[in-house]
Amino acid sequence: MKRILIQLDTDSQASSFDAVTAIDAGVDHLLSYSQINPSNIVPLVQGAIFTRGSKELKNTAIFVGGSNVEAGEKVLAKVQESFFGSMRVSVMMDSNGCNTTAAAAVYYAKKQLDLSQSRAVVLGGTGPVGRRSAHILGSLGAEVVVVSRSLSKAEHVCSLIDDTTGRFTAAEIPAQGKIGSLLEGADLVIAAGAAGVQFATLDELSACESLKVVIDLNAVPPLGIGGIQSTDKANQIGSLICYGALGVGGLKMKIHHHLIEQLFESNDQVFDTSQIYNAALNMG
Amino acid sequence: MKRILIQLDTDSQASSFDAVTAIDAGVDHLLSYSQINPSNIVPLVQGAIFTRGSKELKNTAIFVGGSNVEAGEKVLAKVQESFFGSMRVSVMMDSNGCNTTAAAAVYYAKKQLDLSQSRAVVLGGTGPVGRRSAHILGSLGAEVVVVSRSLSKAEHVCSLIDDTTGRFTAAEIPAQGKIGSLLEGADLVIAAGAAGVQFATLDELSACESLKVVIDLNAVPPLGIGGIQSTDKANQIGSLICYGALGVGGLKMKIHHHLIEQLFESNDQVFDTSQIYNAALNMG
Amino acid sequence: MKRILIQLDTDSQASSFDAVTAIDAGVDHLLSYSQINPSNIVPLVQGAIFTRGSKELKNTAIFVGGSNVEAGEKVLAKVQESFFGSMRVSVMMDSNGCNTTAAAAVYYAKKQLDLSQSRAVVLGGTGPVGRRSAHILGSLGAEVVVVSRSLSKAEHVCSLIDDTTGRFTAAEIPAQGKIGSLLEGADLVIAAGAAGVQFATLDELSACESLKVVIDLNAVPPLGIGGIQSTDKANQIGSLICYGALGVGGLKMKIHHHLIEQLFESNDQVFDTSQIYNAALNMG
Repeated sequence: MKRILIQLDTDSQASSFDAVTAIDAGVDHLLSYSQINPSNIVPLVQGAIFTRGSKELKNTAIFVGGSNVEAGEKVLAKVQESFFGSMRVSVMMDSNGCNTTAAAAVYYAKKQLDLSQSRAVVLGGTGPVGRRSAHILGSLGAEVVVVSRSLSKAEHVCSLIDDTTGRFTAAEIPAQGKIGSLLEGADLVIAAGAAGVQFATLDELSACESLKVVIDLNAVPPLGIGGIQSTDKANQIGSLICYGALGVGGLKMKIHHHLIEQLFESNDQVFDTSQIYNAALNMG
Repeated sequence: MKRILIQLDTDSQASSFDAVTAIDAGVDHLLSYSQINPSNIVPLVQGAIFTRGSKELKNTAIFVGGSNVEAGEKVLAKVQESFFGSMRVSVMMDSNGCNTTAAAAVYYAKKQLDLSQSRAVVLGGTGPVGRRSAHILGSLGAEVVVVSRSLSKAEHVCSLIDDTTGRFTAAEIPAQGKIGSLLEGADLVIAAGAAGVQFATLDELSACESLKVVIDLNAVPPLGIGGIQSTDKANQIGSLICYGALGVGGLKMKIHHHLIEQLFESNDQVFDTSQIYNAALNMG
Repeated sequence: MKRILIQLDTDSQASSFDAVTAIDAGVDHLLSYSQINPSNIVPLVQGAIFTRGSKELKNTAIFVGGSNVEAGEKVLAKVQESFFGSMRVSVMMDSNGCNTTAAAAVYYAKKQLDLSQSRAVVLGGTGPVGRRSAHILGSLGAEVVVVSRSLSKAEHVCSLIDDTTGRFTAAEIPAQGKIGSLLEGADLVIAAGAAGVQFATLDELSACESLKVVIDLNAVPPLGIGGIQSTDKANQIGSLICYGALGVGGLKMKIHHHLIEQLFESNDQVFDTSQIYNAALNMG
């Protein structure tokens, strides 16, 4: 029986990245849907659960994607609400690569640091990957500074992740773009901003004596941290251990491929942030 | 040569049900188009008929679907108008599963009853499956009551099917939702309403002494007839022989798969209500 | 590794012609995107270049299509701008079959005529195939009259192709539709108008003594030149050597299939008008 992945994408054009990755993970047929929101998915989910017998249902799965994480979360919730009893298929949520990229980035940070004793600064912390990186770091006991151009956006993201642990602090990028003041006591910087936004240079980051690890997740020049190469992978540059987007990207792709394959092992799995980070731990 | 099915769907999202079913019927490549109407299909049909040689053309076919049967009928007509000479491909119309589901339902009704001597009440008779069930029942000589919340809609559907035989009567659901008065003399009830609409309970239906067979085509709880299980298949419950959506659905899927396969036997077939019911007779 | 073609189509429905042709050329998975313009393709291109390793990248390619050639040209330019370094995939542009059809038509004209010494009249010269035919004919040294119902459109197309060589003349269809006056000294007529537009009959064309070759690229009756059969292929009719759409179409399809296959030979090719005409020369 053919493996069918139903790609539910919240953008006006379904992600080609997610499509190619699904095919490379062995999906036989990809059914791509764009402009997805909670109000138009019920018939698509019913088409998934009513077309194959219960023993064959594991050969159909759903992938939720798109550039907007909050939209993806709502779609994931509605997909799960549309299941009933054993009438369900496995589903993975990875809007904009948020979960797989964050999982890979935090995996590498954890190789270098005791995260439960670390302070992490996430630049571009309100974007898809930034907020998921903050989420995972916090779940491992780190103190996390979520940095955005907009303080209110940063505060909103902190409140969405968790507003009880006290581990999350919102911060905005200072007026002149000098982020040095945000780094005090930081062990880790993750740059997860939009393509083309450079937050700082390695020289500027080196002024922070506590800083040990820098991870830049932008693959399109100019990169997020000037002086990092996208291929850096645990490269020592001065006092800093550096990772670039392609250095992290190998593991990200491995996780992504693996989890798409895993979707077809049974019809009752949900892969969101914590499950995807756990997969990274087993694969790194 | 690869088997290509061109899915022309009148909805804003092409049906995933039809897509999965096509793949399971052996289609190699599915080309799905949504938001289809008579004004945008000509280039799509030309792309079907001008790309392969005349001997290979049977490997391309068209499927017309979507939730709106009238829109699907118009698309089917325009598809056929766009063919000329031997430049054509086979085409199947099954908007919202109307034809395959109705064919399976009537097949089972016919196993239990002499339909030419029967009176049938179709609840939700203006929906896709309801109107096709009424159509087939009438063509077999049954008297059919088409029931809707709106009398004018029911009358419209009766006029669309046939307004010369006198076999079709329109009726609206009574004010308190008590449908008992509609059942007088009925041998068969088919419930083909929207998901989540419960028309009556088996207890209420049992009050009708003439009634022998009840078929509920809704698979999503709450079902259309309270007390029926979706898996019922010729189950005797009190005086009634009962079928649920999954009980009928096995044959529906078998017909659907079979006809998709048959599309690729030659390039000049049209599968609409009567052809699809005939396929059910051969397969049940 | 699976061959993936990303179809970027500027129309509201992606071309089924291009889709079927891609599949017949051996593409394993087709990812079709409609409503494409320069502002929405960057993420789609990034999804193409960031998902596979550099040695595997040749297994992904991009096809630019749609009915509007100018829109396709802008998309092609933006696709190429979105590549950087070795992060690129091969791309082919053939909006409305403009390049493959024009290449095949001019290939056959060149078999019959010394194009560098010829005068060509392109009817429907502002359409996709017309303007590309004019472009190739001019590049081979022919004098070309670009004919349209609108003189200003014809002038615009001439200026787009080249306004320095003096080889291109714009002309409008005379008031009574009598095109005889446009043919003076012409060796070649190519009819590349919209389906259903008949420009002239073979009888009318025969009145032009210099005329030797007539190519009609319309496959849907009524054809562009009355008296030509769509299957004509170098048929002598009176004094004229005639080609119809299907007569030219065999080579067009062969070129189209071949170039789709060629896309997957390396990740750095661009197939536009000149490359596609060169392929025709090698294949005819």
